[in-house]
Amino acid sequence: MKNVKVGVIGAGRAGMMHIENMLTLNTIELVAVADVLIENVQEKLHEAGIEQTFKDYHELLAVPQIEAVFIFTSTDTHEAICLAAAQAKKHIFCEKPLSMTGQEADSLTVMQSVKENGVRMAIGFNRRLDHQFRTIWEKVEKGEVGEPQIVKITSRDPDLLSHALIQRIGGLIFDFTMHDFDMARYMMHSNVTEVFANGATLIDPTLSEINDIDTLALVLKFENGGFALIDNSRRAVYGYDQRVEVFGSKGMLKAENVSNSTVEHYTSKATLLDKPLPIFNDRYQQAYRQEIIDFVSNLVTGQPFAATPLDVVMAQRVAMAAIASIQTGKAVPVDPKEPIV
Amino acid sequence: MKNVKVGVIGAGRAGMMHIENMLTLNTIELVAVADVLIENVQEKLHEAGIEQTFKDYHELLAVPQIEAVFIFTSTDTHEAICLAAAQAKKHIFCEKPLSMTGQEADSLTVMQSVKENGVRMAIGFNRRLDHQFRTIWEKVEKGEVGEPQIVKITSRDPDLLSHALIQRIGGLIFDFTMHDFDMARYMMHSNVTEVFANGATLIDPTLSEINDIDTLALVLKFENGGFALIDNSRRAVYGYDQRVEVFGSKGMLKAENVSNSTVEHYTSKATLLDKPLPIFNDRYQQAYRQEIIDFVSNLVTGQPFAATPLDVVMAQRVAMAAIASIQTGKAVPVDPKEPIV
Amino acid sequence: MKNVKVGVIGAGRAGMMHIENMLTLNTIELVAVADVLIENVQEKLHEAGIEQTFKDYHELLAVPQIEAVFIFTSTDTHEAICLAAAQAKKHIFCEKPLSMTGQEADSLTVMQSVKENGVRMAIGFNRRLDHQFRTIWEKVEKGEVGEPQIVKITSRDPDLLSHALIQRIGGLIFDFTMHDFDMARYMMHSNVTEVFANGATLIDPTLSEINDIDTLALVLKFENGGFALIDNSRRAVYGYDQRVEVFGSKGMLKAENVSNSTVEHYTSKATLLDKPLPIFNDRYQQAYRQEIIDFVSNLVTGQPFAATPLDVVMAQRVAMAAIASIQTGKAVPVDPKEPIV
Amino acid sequence: MKNVKVGVIGAGRAGMMHIENMLTLNTIELVAVADVLIENVQEKLHEAGIEQTFKDYHELLAVPQIEAVFIFTSTDTHEAICLAAAQAKKHIFCEKPLSMTGQEADSLTVMQSVKENGVRMAIGFNRRLDHQFRTIWEKVEKGEVGEPQIVKITSRDPDLLSHALIQRIGGLIFDFTMHDFDMARYMMHSNVTEVFANGATLIDPTLSEINDIDTLALVLKFENGGFALIDNSRRAVYGYDQRVEVFGSKGMLKAENVSNSTVEHYTSKATLLDKPLPIFNDRYQQAYRQEIIDFVSNLVTGQPFAATPLDVVMAQRVAMAAIASIQTGKAVPVDPKEPIV
Repeated sequence: MKNVKVGVIGAGRAGMMHIENMLTLNTIELVAVADVLIENVQEKLHEAGIEQTFKDYHELLAVPQIEAVFIFTSTDTHEAICLAAAQAKKHIFCEKPLSMTGQEADSLTVMQSVKENGVRMAIGFNRRLDHQFRTIWEKVEKGEVGEPQIVKITSRDPDLLSHALIQRIGGLIFDFTMHDFDMARYMMHSNVTEVFANGATLIDPTLSEINDIDTLALVLKFENGGFALIDNSRRAVYGYDQRVEVFGSKGMLKAENVSNSTVEHYTSKATLLDKPLPIFNDRYQQAYRQEIIDFVSNLVTGQPFAATPLDVVMAQRVAMAAIASIQTGKAVPVDPKEPIV
Repeated sequence: MKNVKVGVIGAGRAGMMHIENMLTLNTIELVAVADVLIENVQEKLHEAGIEQTFKDYHELLAVPQIEAVFIFTSTDTHEAICLAAAQAKKHIFCEKPLSMTGQEADSLTVMQSVKENGVRMAIGFNRRLDHQFRTIWEKVEKGEVGEPQIVKITSRDPDLLSHALIQRIGGLIFDFTMHDFDMARYMMHSNVTEVFANGATLIDPTLSEINDIDTLALVLKFENGGFALIDNSRRAVYGYDQRVEVFGSKGMLKAENVSNSTVEHYTSKATLLDKPLPIFNDRYQQAYRQEIIDFVSNLVTGQPFAATPLDVVMAQRVAMAAIASIQTGKAVPVDPKEPIV
Repeated sequence: MKNVKVGVIGAGRAGMMHIENMLTLNTIELVAVADVLIENVQEKLHEAGIEQTFKDYHELLAVPQIEAVFIFTSTDTHEAICLAAAQAKKHIFCEKPLSMTGQEADSLTVMQSVKENGVRMAIGFNRRLDHQFRTIWEKVEKGEVGEPQIVKITSRDPDLLSHALIQRIGGLIFDFTMHDFDMARYMMHSNVTEVFANGATLIDPTLSEINDIDTLALVLKFENGGFALIDNSRRAVYGYDQRVEVFGSKGMLKAENVSNSTVEHYTSKATLLDKPLPIFNDRYQQAYRQEIIDFVSNLVTGQPFAATPLDVVMAQRVAMAAIASIQTGKAVPVDPKEPIV
Repeated sequence: MKNVKVGVIGAGRAGMMHIENMLTLNTIELVAVADVLIENVQEKLHEAGIEQTFKDYHELLAVPQIEAVFIFTSTDTHEAICLAAAQAKKHIFCEKPLSMTGQEADSLTVMQSVKENGVRMAIGFNRRLDHQFRTIWEKVEKGEVGEPQIVKITSRDPDLLSHALIQRIGGLIFDFTMHDFDMARYMMHSNVTEVFANGATLIDPTLSEINDIDTLALVLKFENGGFALIDNSRRAVYGYDQRVEVFGSKGMLKAENVSNSTVEHYTSKATLLDKPLPIFNDRYQQAYRQEIIDFVSNLVTGQPFAATPLDVVMAQRVAMAAIASIQTGKAVPVDPKEPIV
């Protein structure tokens, strides 16, 4: 397999985690890293053999041999960096979402630019490449449960985020449930036509001060006639709870949580199993690594990426409608027609 | 434990199943059976040692030593028989619902008569006494998951009923989801304040001719602020799918399906487990037996029954609201205040 | 299905449990019960509709309409009662073993008498009809794991028996491991040719005073070349531990323990499951009922019983060799040739 | 954590797998690699940033800054390289065993040299660091099952090795069961005093031509009075089967196989789960990585290694006795006294 020469923009905590993954992959050659605080990680990067480091990402985009860039900066910078990268004729891998506002127009602008510049762009909807969920998706794709009729998704965080962090990354629906909207559509193999949402602050009532909630229940309706049921909580004391179920005319697929070991402990009181993995970077360690592999390999082969900006647009539409539904107490229609760029 | 002398009204398929259970219980003395088609089962009953059999249930109600009656007749007769039984000063165990219309007034009339005649009445919400669900309920009751916040219920039938049968026993919501409404309230330990429902005919489009659906997704909101998510399907090819999950501030309880054995078969293709039990009378065999035991033992001790007419009223309110929600596309409010009779 | 008229000899704790099962079966008509202490249970039996009760089993054997007898008396009486029953031309269901000594000659005498009197005889090796183990056996029979090569059996009692009880019913190998010897042969579909055993008193050292052990490890070799590994303990604090595994050229079958419910409790410390069922009469409730059903139904159809006196003989041979192996520290040969009676 | 500078001797398939793991660890600095066929991997190693490569391991041992060496060469070279490494004052990580003959004297010579030269030595008993088994070991260590009484180990390979390979690496007992002997002692926290073994060729009868077997059943007895039961097969069609169970006075711990995902597929025939992982390098991927981490970190902190040459000696003694047991049909004593070097 041909090596792809890449640059990374954004070397904060998430960025460094991805960089460490990249360093273990022989299909990738990490040429340069840019970060506004590059001084914090420069030594570490040099030790790892990455010689070109920049404070300004424009300098990285100017490095000719770089074929593709990974963008791991904060959300508010995504749109501008994507546009610059596209103009610099670099293929792009960017974390969702493409803009803070969640406005579809912003995403379309990026998609337009990507198209015009003849490059390709993938989105880091990491859960799509989680081994459990990818296995389910593939089996649905092959028709192993027939026509999908009901999708059930449970996503529960291990603990509350600080109000400050929520204000930076977006509230429950835009930061967290967004992944579930994408997962529901991914699993149903159909687009959402309607959403009903009902939320509450059952854990931290002060969340209402920043206009957020911590508990959420949703019903989605799809073009194929099927339904998705999603429930969210910000605090599951037993760990990070991430489950998906697809029920169809020929059967059901479901993925239970993943734990550290298969050890069973039989005592005089109960049989004890290991808890689910505690947090997203444990649970999706394999998926984070796989999304890098997937991007690079599909870049080389020309195959479709696991997730693209279109998938962000479609998930954002549901998020917008969910917020409207909470406000009105009604099911809110969602346009299932995919934008043509 | 003192024996209770009982009569059974209704000896069709369901009635005979219950009678067979009663014959194995030494806390019960089955004195008489009444059925409009008593000639079909008379010989069998006599062989089993039940000497008094009647065509007309009024004759059974006139037998003085009978302390309590079990009513297993068709729904349209429940109200009249309950009223007659109460007037005859017999304690009553009746299958839900109390009337075909689902009108609350009908149920209240029965409750009023029961009260005035100084007898007690239990309802056959069998799932409450299923070993899995009762265990969860008890643990919630003891606070083992803290305050319940999210209840998830999946109920899927193994196969479509005939249109004729549906018309006799009521459509999906009144016959089937009714149990889930009760289960949700039972598990949440709180009353419903709002319901959103969305249904479809994904399996048999001709169901719309009799104004029914085969697939259903619901979100319930409760007085304690929590939510329930319920999904229903009329056809699960893998068997009778009955699962409950209660998530709370201190943990989660869930009950997976029950299968015939723990046998695991490791092959070169996959590891195979036994399917879930195929149908309600297998899955709830223990619960059907237990509801009889519970009724009789609580009659003797004066303890509360697992389910009462009040529970029917509260579930019917949700069912009514669910139907309105499907028609309007809105969340429909439900009165959480329990009627005082 | 034709009703079979039966008598029960022995109405102690075990006998009464079996009688209660029989009363719920409509393929059986329990005509009479005999017990040396019949006065203790007479009233109960009469209430249940059994009119003929005897102190002396010979009187029961003289009742003409009785076609078959169940023998649930203490082991030391089995041989004499079986011989008398055979001579009275009654079919026989008897608990293992056939004699206290474990001498093959005693069993052969019974088999001879059964044959000469033209009756049939079944043995209560209840585990053969446990739903899990029967399922495995059937799949092995159908070739679903190919040629069986390794059988693994774990049998662990929940707690020590009193020394007095052990002296009455036989030590670990004769009372408890005996079932495993039968299970191993049943699962392997082949006869034992050699056994190695090593035992110890790890729980109660005073067991050595009555020449018994509480912990045992064995390797059996079979005519087909395969092996069985068996481990026993008298005290498993987590409940009654009964597992079987069959490994063959085409796969593996295994049955884990059975617990009361499928409920999973997710806490901040661990995920808790229900313990295995606590004791033999819970674990084998279904099997005890099934062995009665099996006996009666095979009596009527002429099909082979699940277990016969021959199976006792073959298990006793292994038990004898196991004791010799413990004494000598060597693998001891076992004659795999079945006796012809 | 201080970086440790290391060299690797042996860069065949196993060596390269370990080298790739090392390259992802920031506690290790891989300075040099030696291999008799270094030309095959030189380019790859240079690309990975390893500049010093040698054909002759003596040259690697002469590199002054190397503090520790990993030995991944073929078994017949282990003893000589270990002795040379010790004399060169390098700490040593070596794959088991230390010599082809399995002679204890050879291992003791290595241990003596290690001691005299003031270096430390670890052994690659990878299973000790498998997450499942390490968890069990830690819980046993903490007394969570009380005094261990019965250890059960199942190790089944996915498929037969070629006769040629077996002749190079040793037969079933020396190459494969050796790991189980170590695991049994590790889990029991006690030394073996006696072994009984019985083996057969149930899969490939021609194995007898090279004096090997493919199926094996063993009972081990320990100083603490406990027993281990081990079963081995060379061909499990469902994958690599590696399970451990520890039963003690206060409970039981067991580790089932590990599979690729938690996905459950409910069909009209059965519920399907993913198969166990297919082969050792999948199953023990984490353990292989962990044994490198463990070695380096304990080198730095001075803590004991997970496995040492003493553990090889103790496992070899059992292997020798197992072979004698197969030949004699008797339990063969094993000296539980650990050698003092």
